[in-house]
Amino acid sequence: MALSDVKALTFDVFGTVVDYRGTIMREGELLNQSKGLWVDWAQFADAWRARYRPSMARVMQGELPWTNLDALHRLILDELLIWNEINERFTEDEKVHLNRVWHRLQPWPDVIAGLERLRKRFIVAALSNGNMALLVNMAKYSGLPWDCILSAELVQAYKPDPRPYQMAVNLLGLHSYEVMMVAAQAQGMQAAFVPRPLEHGPDHTPDLTPDPTFEVVATDFMDLAQQLGT
Amino acid sequence: MALSDVKALTFDVFGTVVDYRGTIMREGELLNQSKGLWVDWAQFADAWRARYRPSMARVMQGELPWTNLDALHRLILDELLIWNEINERFTEDEKVHLNRVWHRLQPWPDVIAGLERLRKRFIVAALSNGNMALLVNMAKYSGLPWDCILSAELVQAYKPDPRPYQMAVNLLGLHSYEVMMVAAQAQGMQAAFVPRPLEHGPDHTPDLTPDPTFEVVATDFMDLAQQLGT
Repeated sequence: MALSDVKALTFDVFGTVVDYRGTIMREGELLNQSKGLWVDWAQFADAWRARYRPSMARVMQGELPWTNLDALHRLILDELLIWNEINERFTEDEKVHLNRVWHRLQPWPDVIAGLERLRKRFIVAALSNGNMALLVNMAKYSGLPWDCILSAELVQAYKPDPRPYQMAVNLLGLHSYEVMMVAAQAQGMQAAFVPRPLEHGPDHTPDLTPDPTFEVVATDFMDLAQQLGT
Repeated sequence: MALSDVKALTFDVFGTVVDYRGTIMREGELLNQSKGLWVDWAQFADAWRARYRPSMARVMQGELPWTNLDALHRLILDELLIWNEINERFTEDEKVHLNRVWHRLQPWPDVIAGLERLRKRFIVAALSNGNMALLVNMAKYSGLPWDCILSAELVQAYKPDPRPYQMAVNLLGLHSYEVMMVAAQAQGMQAAFVPRPLEHGPDHTPDLTPDPTFEVVATDFMDLAQQLGT
């Protein structure tokens, strides 16, 4: 793949585009205040996210039928509320609202300006394990200027299964060498690497060494736009 | 359905949002000039569009396997080029480009301002028989500010088959009474009617009487925004 072949950029969303940890901490802090709770929401966010891969694995291994991410998030949330001994402090409506914090995730500071710049030359598409409703609501809430929203839900297979990536190439009517994945983690395809050192919080020391298969390594979306010549 | 329940508007695209006839006439006129042709491009556009429903019917009846709209458009284009005795005047690359005029369709004058206004309150989504690549490229080319692009291609069934409508409701995570279809023709579901008297050209006298099942009848997208309280 030559960089000049690239026509579309597909973006990993959680972690790469939006800061789930920071958003959940901010909303959680308000809940602590309004409900008089003492929950460590950073830990809560980390636990919610940590159970994400195992829950998807249960779907992909056939232990659960197809279950979209909203529903998986809810299964995990219910466990975490019980584990934190705060389940009785939330009404069902409040649980529904809290589960939809994933629809209200806010972008890293460079994201909107970076996407606006990148989309002048490229198709910019979300390609996420989040379900469509989650991604559409998030884009609307946080002003993410996608040209197109694509979800693993459309092929009922979660990344890193190859089907979502192949779907994106097919639906965009492109060749695989014309589509570049942008991610904060290795994705198993030609990709740009944008590390998000704060994804897991300031106390976490992630290995930010890019996989040598990445075509582009950028510090943020503005740097990515620069390197791609926009 | 009460209008106050509506959370998302799904839009029929060809005819309702974009003026395929006008766009094809404009591009065709340039081809007449550059190639010294005498094609009546209004008639050409009408014939291209007239064969659209029968070609989709061939797919839905199983006479053809799933074939996306780009490919159906190309089958029709090849027939029309031969029928007009101009097939030899186009290289393969030129035919590919001409077939993609459907990716470059331009909106009716009220559309962009109307969508911008409507999307302040509602999710605005394309819901079209056009394939995803066609719709994504069109949105980019003509600046259509969709929150989400949904295509019949995602369920491999063309409207008016109920599957695309049901898909939209499911993917948006809504109830059917929360989704309103906006169309210039009856769509077999709760809908707003926006007549486009010039869709088939000035000499055509369409029956613009709205189906009594329409919840809203609007003169254009700005009027629709007004009636929906945005």
